[in-house]
Amino acid sequence: MAEDDSLAQFLAVAVDAAKRAGEKIRKGFYQTKHVEHKGQVDLVTETDKACEDLIFNHLKQHFPEHKFIGEETTAACGTTELNDQPTWIVDPLDGTTNFVHGFPFVCVSIGLTIGKVPTIGVVYNPIIDELFTGIRGKGAFLNGTPIRASSQTELVKSLLATEIGTKRDKITVDATTNRINSLLFKVRSLRMSGSCALNLCGIACGRIDIFYELGFGGPWDVAAGALIVQEAGGRVFDPSGRDFDITAQRVAASNPHLEDAFVEALRQAERD
Amino acid sequence: MAEDDSLAQFLAVAVDAAKRAGEKIRKGFYQTKHVEHKGQVDLVTETDKACEDLIFNHLKQHFPEHKFIGEETTAACGTTELNDQPTWIVDPLDGTTNFVHGFPFVCVSIGLTIGKVPTIGVVYNPIIDELFTGIRGKGAFLNGTPIRASSQTELVKSLLATEIGTKRDKITVDATTNRINSLLFKVRSLRMSGSCALNLCGIACGRIDIFYELGFGGPWDVAAGALIVQEAGGRVFDPSGRDFDITAQRVAASNPHLEDAFVEALRQAERD
Repeated sequence: MAEDDSLAQFLAVAVDAAKRAGEKIRKGFYQTKHVEHKGQVDLVTETDKACEDLIFNHLKQHFPEHKFIGEETTAACGTTELNDQPTWIVDPLDGTTNFVHGFPFVCVSIGLTIGKVPTIGVVYNPIIDELFTGIRGKGAFLNGTPIRASSQTELVKSLLATEIGTKRDKITVDATTNRINSLLFKVRSLRMSGSCALNLCGIACGRIDIFYELGFGGPWDVAAGALIVQEAGGRVFDPSGRDFDITAQRVAASNPHLEDAFVEALRQAERD
Repeated sequence: MAEDDSLAQFLAVAVDAAKRAGEKIRKGFYQTKHVEHKGQVDLVTETDKACEDLIFNHLKQHFPEHKFIGEETTAACGTTELNDQPTWIVDPLDGTTNFVHGFPFVCVSIGLTIGKVPTIGVVYNPIIDELFTGIRGKGAFLNGTPIRASSQTELVKSLLATEIGTKRDKITVDATTNRINSLLFKVRSLRMSGSCALNLCGIACGRIDIFYELGFGGPWDVAAGALIVQEAGGRVFDPSGRDFDITAQRVAASNPHLEDAFVEALRQAERD
C-alpha cells in the first residue's frame, strides 16, 4: 500500500509537470518560433528547452534523489546510462516538426523507470487536450477514462502507423519505402502522425492496431508510451520479434492479438 | 450586394448542416459500428448514410432549386454530372477508415459550385471541433479566424502530406511507394492523416506546405477544401502541373511559393 501511494504520488507530480509544460507548448503552437537544426530535419525549439527545464525542476523539487534523462540534457552532455535507480525519462516536446509547422500532434512525454522497468507513463497532447496516463499494474487512462488496445484479429483490417524518420541517405530511405511497400499489401491503411509517443498512445486506446518505428531519437520517445501500451493490454516488442529494449531506438507495438502476424509481416518486409 | 447576401446565406445554411451532421459523427465516434465494405479497404458506416440524408434534407429545405451530388447517392445511382447550376457537392463523412478506428481526423465536407466554379466551402472536424469555411473572393477561416497558407519557400523545409489510397494491386502500390521514395529526398517530412478534405484544410491554414493525392473517391473529397485553399492564398492544381479538374480524382495543393518546385518534384517522381 505504501508503494501504491508512492506510485500515485509519482504520477500526480508527473501529470502536474506535463500540464505546466503543455501550457507553454499550447501558447507557442501558433507563434513564429526561433528554430535550431539538429541534423537535416530534426528541430529543437526554444519551447522544447524551456519545457525540459520546467519539467526537470518540478520533478527534482519533489524527488531530489531521483535520476533524470532528457533529450536536451543528453544532447548537451552525452549519453546517460540507464541504471536501477528511479529514473525520469523525459521528452519535453515530442513532435517538434509538427510543433514548428502547427500540425496538432505534439506532446509532452514523461516516463519513470524503477529497476530499469517502465513504471509510470504520462503523455499529454495540449493542443487537443488528451492526457494519457499509466501506472505499472494499475491500467491505462485517457483523460481519466480506462483505455484498451483494439480487439482486431486480422492484419488486413488493421490500421498501421509508422514514421519516415529524419535520415535522408539513400540506403535508409530505400529501406523505409521498401518496408512500407511490403506492408501495404497486408494492412488496411497507413497513418503518419509525426509523434512516436502519440503513436504508442494510439495503440493503447485502439485508434491504431499496429505501429513500428526505427531510428527515433532515444528512450525519451518511448519510456512513457511503452508503459501505457502495456497497461492498456497491448504489446511492445522489438520489430524483429525480440524483447523490447528501451535504449535500442527501435520499437514495435500492437494489440494483444496481432503481435505474431505483425512480426512475421515485418520480417517478410526485410526479405522483400 | 444581393449576391453577397445569397453567398452568406448559402454558407450559413451549409455550416448549420455540417454542425448537425458533426454531432452525429461525434456521437458515433467511440461506439462500435456496423460497417459495410466498398472495395477492399473503403468503409461506409451507418453514420455516413445518416449524415448524407441529414445534410441533403437540410439543404433541399432551404434551396429546393439547387442540385446535389453526394458520395452515397452517387454510389447508389451512378455518376452525376456536374453542370452550371448551383450544385452542392457533399462528403458527409470524409475519413471513414479513421472513423471506424477512432482516429481523430474525420470531417464533414460541403462544397457549392456555381457555373462549375467552387464558390462555398465548409469542412468541419467535430472531434477536435475545427470548422474551416470559405466564400469565393471573401477569404478562408478556421473557427471564424482568417487563415493563410504557409510562407515556406524551400521544398527541403516543407511538410508533405499524402495518402496511400485504397487500391492494393501491385502496380498501384509500387507507383505509390516509388513516388514517396523520390519525394522523401526533397522534403522535411511526411504526414498521412487519412482525410483528403482535412489535408486541403491543412494547406489552407499552413500546417502542411504541400499535398497530393491520386485516386480518391470523387469530387466530394475536394469541392469544399479546394475553395478553402484558394481563399487562403494557396494553390490547387493537377499533380501533373495542369489545371485542377474537380472531377478527375487527382489533386495537388501548395502554398503560393512552392507550386513550381512541387510540380517539378512530382514530375521527377514519375520518372524515377
